[in-house]
Amino acid sequence: TRWWTPEVRDAVRLKKESYQTMLACGTPDAVYRYRQAKQACSPDGPGGKNSGPGRSSIDEEVAKLLELKAQLGGEDGKHQFVLKTAKGTRDYNPKQMAIREKVFSTIVSCFKRHGAETIDTPVFELKETLTGKYGEDSKLIYDLKDQGGELLSLRYDLTVPFARYLAMNKITNIKRYHIAKVYRRDNPAMTRGRYREFYQCDFDIAGQYDAMIPDAECLKIVHEILSELDLGDFRIKVNDRRILDGMFAVCGVPDDKFRTICSTVDKLDKMPWEDVKKEMVNEKGLSEEAAEQIGEYVSMQGGMDLAERLLQDPKMSQSKQACAGLSDIKLLFSYLQLFQVTEKVVFDLSLARGLDYYTGVIYEGVLTQAGVAQVSTDTQNGTPTEENVSVGSVAGGGRYDGLVGMFDPKGRKVPCVGVSIGIERIFSIMEQKAEASAEKVRTTEVQVMVASAQKNLLEERLKLVTELWNAGIKAEVMYKKNPKLLSQLQHCEESGIPLVAILGEQELKDGVVKLRIVATREEVDISRAGLISEIRRRTTS
Amino acid sequence: TRWWTPEVRDAVRLKKESYQTMLACGTPDAVYRYRQAKQACSPDGPGGKNSGPGRSSIDEEVAKLLELKAQLGGEDGKHQFVLKTAKGTRDYNPKQMAIREKVFSTIVSCFKRHGAETIDTPVFELKETLTGKYGEDSKLIYDLKDQGGELLSLRYDLTVPFARYLAMNKITNIKRYHIAKVYRRDNPAMTRGRYREFYQCDFDIAGQYDAMIPDAECLKIVHEILSELDLGDFRIKVNDRRILDGMFAVCGVPDDKFRTICSTVDKLDKMPWEDVKKEMVNEKGLSEEAAEQIGEYVSMQGGMDLAERLLQDPKMSQSKQACAGLSDIKLLFSYLQLFQVTEKVVFDLSLARGLDYYTGVIYEGVLTQAGVAQVSTDTQNGTPTEENVSVGSVAGGGRYDGLVGMFDPKGRKVPCVGVSIGIERIFSIMEQKAEASAEKVRTTEVQVMVASAQKNLLEERLKLVTELWNAGIKAEVMYKKNPKLLSQLQHCEESGIPLVAILGEQELKDGVVKLRIVATREEVDISRAGLISEIRRRTTS
Repeated sequence: TRWWTPEVRDAVRLKKESYQTMLACGTPDAVYRYRQAKQACSPDGPGGKNSGPGRSSIDEEVAKLLELKAQLGGEDGKHQFVLKTAKGTRDYNPKQMAIREKVFSTIVSCFKRHGAETIDTPVFELKETLTGKYGEDSKLIYDLKDQGGELLSLRYDLTVPFARYLAMNKITNIKRYHIAKVYRRDNPAMTRGRYREFYQCDFDIAGQYDAMIPDAECLKIVHEILSELDLGDFRIKVNDRRILDGMFAVCGVPDDKFRTICSTVDKLDKMPWEDVKKEMVNEKGLSEEAAEQIGEYVSMQGGMDLAERLLQDPKMSQSKQACAGLSDIKLLFSYLQLFQVTEKVVFDLSLARGLDYYTGVIYEGVLTQAGVAQVSTDTQNGTPTEENVSVGSVAGGGRYDGLVGMFDPKGRKVPCVGVSIGIERIFSIMEQKAEASAEKVRTTEVQVMVASAQKNLLEERLKLVTELWNAGIKAEVMYKKNPKLLSQLQHCEESGIPLVAILGEQELKDGVVKLRIVATREEVDISRAGLISEIRRRTTS
Repeated sequence: TRWWTPEVRDAVRLKKESYQTMLACGTPDAVYRYRQAKQACSPDGPGGKNSGPGRSSIDEEVAKLLELKAQLGGEDGKHQFVLKTAKGTRDYNPKQMAIREKVFSTIVSCFKRHGAETIDTPVFELKETLTGKYGEDSKLIYDLKDQGGELLSLRYDLTVPFARYLAMNKITNIKRYHIAKVYRRDNPAMTRGRYREFYQCDFDIAGQYDAMIPDAECLKIVHEILSELDLGDFRIKVNDRRILDGMFAVCGVPDDKFRTICSTVDKLDKMPWEDVKKEMVNEKGLSEEAAEQIGEYVSMQGGMDLAERLLQDPKMSQSKQACAGLSDIKLLFSYLQLFQVTEKVVFDLSLARGLDYYTGVIYEGVLTQAGVAQVSTDTQNGTPTEENVSVGSVAGGGRYDGLVGMFDPKGRKVPCVGVSIGIERIFSIMEQKAEASAEKVRTTEVQVMVASAQKNLLEERLKLVTELWNAGIKAEVMYKKNPKLLSQLQHCEESGIPLVAILGEQELKDGVVKLRIVATREEVDISRAGLISEIRRRTTS
C-alpha cells in the first residue's frame, strides 16, 4: 500500500541490496567483488566502465541511497505525492453530475425536437487535421507525445472533426448534434467556468440549401435552449463575416490585416473601445483614421432596419461583400420573425468571432448582467462580486462554407452552419442556483430501501431486494449483516429515498412488509404480493 | 480553401521567392548577392555557414522546391492529405450512435436500479497518478507531449481515476457508476471490437462493509445487464487473487514470479495449456514440476462444492491466503443464490485478470460461443467466420482494497469492488444484430414533417413548424423555398418520420392541415387548433 513508482522501487531495491552487501562485507574489496559478479551477468560484461570503484564511489552510492530514502518521504516510507487533477480540469461530483445531466437533457431534447441525429468522433485527431484551422489560437492545441506512429492532437472543438467526418464519408447533407469534451491549453479561470477540458454541445446543419433558413433555425435553437434553461434574460448578437470584411475594406484596412484586426475587434466585449483602438494602431500598425472609421461602425446595433440603413450607407455600400452580408441579415430577420424570436436578437457590428473558418453569418448568445447577477453570490460574504457576475457568452456559432472543402481531395464544398452551446458557464450558474435553492439535489433515483429492525435478517433482505430489482424497482440494501435501523433510516433521509421496506420476524410470519413513508414517518403493512405495485403507485410522479 | 500546413506554406513561399530571384537574375552571382542580403538581416549575420553557394546548391534548392511542389499535389495546389481517424479509433455514425445510446440506456438503468450515483473525471491525469498501477500494461499508456507545465497521460481505465478521486476528496463510502472513454496503445483488432479509444462502463462500491455482500451485488449487476442486452448465453467466471497467489505458493512458484506467472495464466482463454506451460517454463524460468501442478489446478471449474473440496485439498489448504479466498468464494455463492444468479456463475481457477491492483475476488463475464455465433455473419459471404464468432469477455472486475490507500498521504485504505462492462464488443454484436434484422434503426425522433404541395408557402411552413416546436413536438421542415412534395415524402420514408403535416392554399383558407400517415398513406384534414393533440395522440407509443 505504499506509494512509489516502479522505477524508484527498483532503484531502491538495488541500492539496498548493494548497500547491504557493502555493510555485510565491510570493505571496498567486497563491493568490488560484488560488482564484478553482477557485471558478469549484465549485458555489458565484466570490466565495463564502472568496474573497480574506490572508497569515493561507495560514498557516492550511500549519498544516492540517502537521497532516494528522502524522496520516499522518510521513515514512514511515504512518497510526497501531489493529489490533484491536471491544471485547468476538474472532477464532477455526483451533485454536479445531477445538474449536468439535467442541463444536457434540456439541450438534447431541443436538438431532437429539431430533428437532429448525433455522431461521435475520437478525442484525438491526426495533428495535421487541426493545423491551419484556428488562426492565432492554434498554440492552445494539446499535442500527444510522439510514442512512435502518428502525430496526434486533442480536438480543439467539435466543428473541425465534424468537417473531417463529412469529407471522409462524403456526406453532403446532415443535421447532427455532438456533445463531447474539447481541449484548450488556455489560461484557466475556473470560477468563471473557463476550463482546459470542457464540454461543447454542437448542433450543425450541413447541405446546400436556400439562404438563411438553416441559419435562422440555429438561432431559434439558441433561443429555445437559453429560455428553457431559465438563466435570466439574454441577447443573441448577430453579424456576418462578409460585413466585417467589407467594413474593414471600406475603412482602409489592408487585406493582409483583416484577420488580425478582426481578432482585436473580437475583444470589444472585454475591453473598452479606447484600448481596442490603441491595440489596432500601436500594435497592429493600423492608421488612426481607419481605426476611427471602424470605431463608428462597431458601435452600431439594431435590427433589420440597421441592415437596411447600412445598405444605403455611401461607404459601406461600396463593398459588394458587405452588401451581400447585409441582404442576408435582412432575410435572416424575416425568418426570425416567423420563428418569433426577434425580440432577443440584435444585429451588432462589433461581433467578430475569432475562429478562422467562418465565412458568413456569425452569432453569440450572451446572458445579460441582471440575469446572471441575480443568481450569483460570492460564497464568502454572500454579495455579488465582479468575478461571478461577469456576463458570459454562453452560445456561439456561424456559417462555415469552406471548412469541409479543405478536407476534400477535390475541394468539394459542403456549406455548413452551426451553433455551440457553452455549457460550462451554464453549469456554473446552475450550480450556484442549486446552492441558493432550498430544494435538495438528489443524486440517485432509489425508490425504496430494504431495511430490517432486527438481527440476522440479511438473507431475507437480500431476497426481498432481489424481488424488487427483478421487477425493475430502484432499490438499495445496506451491505452489513446487522445494520442499525436508525442508520438505515438516516441514509434514506440523506439521499432523499422516499420509502423504506422494513422486514422483521413478525412481518415475515405474517407475509407482509412494513412500508414506511420517509417524509411523513407513516408506516403501513403491505402484503408481500402487493408490495411492488404499492411502491410503483407511491413513487411515480 | 486550399489545404496545406502553415509550415509547408511558409517554406514554399520562401523557396518560391528565392527561386524567383534566381530566375530573375539568372546567375549564381545574383543568387550569392541575394543570399548575402538575406543573411545580413538574419540572426546568423552575414558570412554564416551557408554563404557562398555554387551551382550545385542552386540545383539542390531547385530539387527541394520541386519536391515541395510534388507534396502539394501538383498543378491544382491540392495537398495529398490523409483523411482518416487516428489508428485504432473510429467515428460513430448516427446509426451506430442510436445503437450505442440504447445499450447505454440499458446499462445506466441497471446501475440506477442499484442506487448508484455518477461522477466524471478528466480524460487525462497527472502521469504519476497512473504510474505503477498497471504492471506490464503500463507501456500502453498514451502520454501527452510536454508543452511546458505538468506531465499528463490519457486515462487507461476508470478505476485508477476513481481511486484518485476518493483519496483526493477523502470519500470513504460511495456507490458510483462512470461511463467514459479510456485509451490504450494496444494492437487494435477493430473487427473484434478492440480499439485504442473505447468506452468503459464502470460500477464500483467503495466502503468498509461485511464480506462479499457488495461483491455479490456486482455479479448480480453483470447478470442483469448481460440478460437484458439479450446477447445470447453467457457465463460469469469467478476466482480470487488470494486463491491464485496461494496456489502459486503451494505449487512452488517463487514469490517474485507471482505476477508474471499470473499474467501467463491470464492467457489461458486465448492459448492452449501446452503453450501457456511452455511460456512459464521456457520464458519465465518456472520449473517443469511447478508448471505441471499449476496445470492441474487451473483446469478446475465448479461452484460452491469446488471451493469446499479445495479447502480440504492437502496442498491448497496449506496456504492461509488460499483458504481465506476459498471461504469467501463459498460465502459469495451463498449470496448469489439469494440473488438467483448461480446458474450462470462458475468458480474457475484459470481466471487470472492481468491488472496489478486486484486483491480479492475477480470475475469476468463471457459470452458463450453459440450465442455470439448466432448473430455473427461475415459481411462478405454471409457465413460465420473465426474472426467474428470469437467468444468475448464482455465484463470484468474484482476487489481492489489497496488502490485508494496508494493515493492517500497517510495510506488510509478504502476497500473497493467493482465491475467494468466491455461495451465495444457489445456494440459490435448489437450492430451485427441490427444489420441482420429487418427492423430499421431510426436515428432521429421526428414525429412530423411540415410540408407543402405548392410553391411560395415557405413562410406558412415556418409559422406552422414554430407552433409545433413551441408545443414540444419534434418536427422538421425542408430548408428550401419550394421543395417538391415527393422529396418531402421521400425524406419521411427514409427517416421513418410517421406523420406529414401538409399545407396548401386550400388548407390555409379552411384553417386546417392535411395530416398524412406515412405508413398507410391515409390523409385526414385536422383543424389547426386540434393539430397538436392529434399529433401527440398518433405518436405516443
